[in-house]
Amino acid sequence: MSNMETHKKLTIGLFGFGVVGEGLYKVLHQTPSLNANIKKVCIKNPGKKRNAPAELFTTSREEILSDPEINVVVEVINESEPAFEIVSTAIKNGKAVVSASKKMIAEHLTEILDLQKTYEQPFLYESAACASIPVIRNLEEYYDNDLLHSMRAIVNGSTNFILTKMFEDKLDFKQALILAQQLGFAEVDPSLDVEGYDAVNKWTFLLTHAYGIIEKPSNIVFTGIQNIQAGDAGVAKEKNFQIKLVAQAKKLNNGKVAAFVLPQFVTAEEPLSFVKNEFNGVVIESGFADKQFFYGKGAGSFPTASAVLSDISALRYHYRYEYKKLYHHTPNKLTDEFFIRVYVSFDDWKYVPRDKFEWIEEWHAEQDRKYLIGVLPFSSLRESNWWRENNTSLILSPDPIIEDIEIRKLKKMSLELAGILD
Amino acid sequence: MSNMETHKKLTIGLFGFGVVGEGLYKVLHQTPSLNANIKKVCIKNPGKKRNAPAELFTTSREEILSDPEINVVVEVINESEPAFEIVSTAIKNGKAVVSASKKMIAEHLTEILDLQKTYEQPFLYESAACASIPVIRNLEEYYDNDLLHSMRAIVNGSTNFILTKMFEDKLDFKQALILAQQLGFAEVDPSLDVEGYDAVNKWTFLLTHAYGIIEKPSNIVFTGIQNIQAGDAGVAKEKNFQIKLVAQAKKLNNGKVAAFVLPQFVTAEEPLSFVKNEFNGVVIESGFADKQFFYGKGAGSFPTASAVLSDISALRYHYRYEYKKLYHHTPNKLTDEFFIRVYVSFDDWKYVPRDKFEWIEEWHAEQDRKYLIGVLPFSSLRESNWWRENNTSLILSPDPIIEDIEIRKLKKMSLELAGILD
Repeated sequence: MSNMETHKKLTIGLFGFGVVGEGLYKVLHQTPSLNANIKKVCIKNPGKKRNAPAELFTTSREEILSDPEINVVVEVINESEPAFEIVSTAIKNGKAVVSASKKMIAEHLTEILDLQKTYEQPFLYESAACASIPVIRNLEEYYDNDLLHSMRAIVNGSTNFILTKMFEDKLDFKQALILAQQLGFAEVDPSLDVEGYDAVNKWTFLLTHAYGIIEKPSNIVFTGIQNIQAGDAGVAKEKNFQIKLVAQAKKLNNGKVAAFVLPQFVTAEEPLSFVKNEFNGVVIESGFADKQFFYGKGAGSFPTASAVLSDISALRYHYRYEYKKLYHHTPNKLTDEFFIRVYVSFDDWKYVPRDKFEWIEEWHAEQDRKYLIGVLPFSSLRESNWWRENNTSLILSPDPIIEDIEIRKLKKMSLELAGILD
Repeated sequence: MSNMETHKKLTIGLFGFGVVGEGLYKVLHQTPSLNANIKKVCIKNPGKKRNAPAELFTTSREEILSDPEINVVVEVINESEPAFEIVSTAIKNGKAVVSASKKMIAEHLTEILDLQKTYEQPFLYESAACASIPVIRNLEEYYDNDLLHSMRAIVNGSTNFILTKMFEDKLDFKQALILAQQLGFAEVDPSLDVEGYDAVNKWTFLLTHAYGIIEKPSNIVFTGIQNIQAGDAGVAKEKNFQIKLVAQAKKLNNGKVAAFVLPQFVTAEEPLSFVKNEFNGVVIESGFADKQFFYGKGAGSFPTASAVLSDISALRYHYRYEYKKLYHHTPNKLTDEFFIRVYVSFDDWKYVPRDKFEWIEEWHAEQDRKYLIGVLPFSSLRESNWWRENNTSLILSPDPIIEDIEIRKLKKMSLELAGILD
């Protein structure tokens, strides 16, 4: 095919030789058709034994960043700030960059967008979102002209593994976490995953590709699964729900976007209920394509390396993200002007500001643990921390968003219903 | 972004203004950012009332095919032969082509590949595979370097709708079919869907993108759901299975590919069990990315139009399929050298050639209907028709493929087990 002729030969400088870096090295060896070759690997610790020839390694960043023959820098290190230094220098030096560093990308998104604009170099990071699921590519290429009503996703494999074990094997949170660590699905310091930081980092740049939104991760309301209790799983089971840590975004009638990362009850009909263990899943609802669901491994050496490989492969034909929702459409804006229906379980009523609720639909008090279901203005979650302190566990209802225009009617109905029941 | 500068303005000539054509017309009106404009629509029946200005329409193919200003031909008519004439003339006249005609593409695959090679024009047909699911694009772009172990899919929404209704609402086949027709999910002449022709047509070119295989649809063993009985659904339910019409392909240890379209029992753990009603689903298992699952609407005006739209959008940056598995790798070959485990239900033993079975694991005889589970050489399905005649219903077991190298060990185990049980 004639478009083959324009394919670049790729000479790669790799930063990092952990599970992903080594996975990529192996994967590249098994795909000679790619015409890509790792020339040098920059590592921090030269003493460590590695499964690759010693002459491949260097501890000098400059050896890669200043080598004119290297036209692709692949960065799969763990620390955010060095990663950003490497990536930005590489772009400035005229190299295409592939990165897997979600935290770095989320925290430096504006600078990264500016660098791409100024130096016109491709910067691809599919593996940073859901590892093997091509969600960025499909948002960029396939849903670029469609109207995205909503997007919801399980983007963190560790927390999903823990929740699955809490549900299916009735482990408590700590047992499930230890099992996840033993199997390599959770870090030794698991807080980045468990408390939702990893998920909100990924959600930050997925919001850019889906809606043209640019926000700091710290500006998106989120939590993790650290407060979910075995009792919550019991309540969920009674209602035939599962509990998932769901990252979501929905375009509201006011034209703005509601977006957050919170635990949620998920019904059996919802595709995300199918996502078990370390898998990830993304549900996209759009004007024309209707409901789409992507499912795949969201973590692990080879699934992540396969996404890095696909990005490298795309560089051969000079592929770049266009960020169409940001540059060619009117970018969307985040809003807090909506309400959410939540389940809250807690040790004592004193920890729950009942006056913040628009109404409460259900409440139960048992010896040790109490719970209620009610409706809150979303802004109240941003303004205070009661819902993630004092052992309190907040879980969204299925289909949790209630828009401003619906709230009055629903409140009236709910109060009438309460009157009848009293 | 600088790559915007290379974007073509697209002037479209559209063939066909049925549900998909009209859907596309509406969808394009809602996406002005695409910079694409329908100049003329060729229709067969000028008398019919249409929801678009009269001056848009013509009955002359030439008016579109010879118009030098039109650089994109979109073909969404139903008849295969006229579609091929239109598509091949358009390519020869230097136009990019987007088509939704699965039957035409399957039947003229070799010619279409040759035309693309000779005239170097893009010919895109994502909507022909699974409508809104971007399966071709992902096979081309995302799994191009990965080793595909297997691919299995529900590619026909009508049959899946009928099966769902037989299962969930306990309708018999005919009632479910009538309901599908009433809701617009099945044609007035439903045989193309129901008897598996539509599925095998789609599978033909998906095999090309996944494995570089080029075969006539008639050379792929297939059937539909026409012989499935309410009793089969009952047996499935007992075993906690569902019945799906599954198109599948698997790379065997001998390096060749097993591929067919047959009804199959599907376990609750299998992602395809999640695919209900008119939805489609594709499961890809690969060396690096592991298990992936894509799910979305496989039929309907807007879901199909959205895929056509994505193809049109891709033409702006001169996108073409590369058929890498065909041209840049060693293309794979189909094989019949394997065995399959099947369930067969039938009216009378005389219709089942028991001597063709390697062994039979289970059999049941009730008043009106009998069934057995056993293992057959796959070639026996190609060589005879007993399994789709005389009201006989053949359904594959979950994980039905048994490779040559396993068969002797399994046969020995099975015969020993039968001896113990006798």
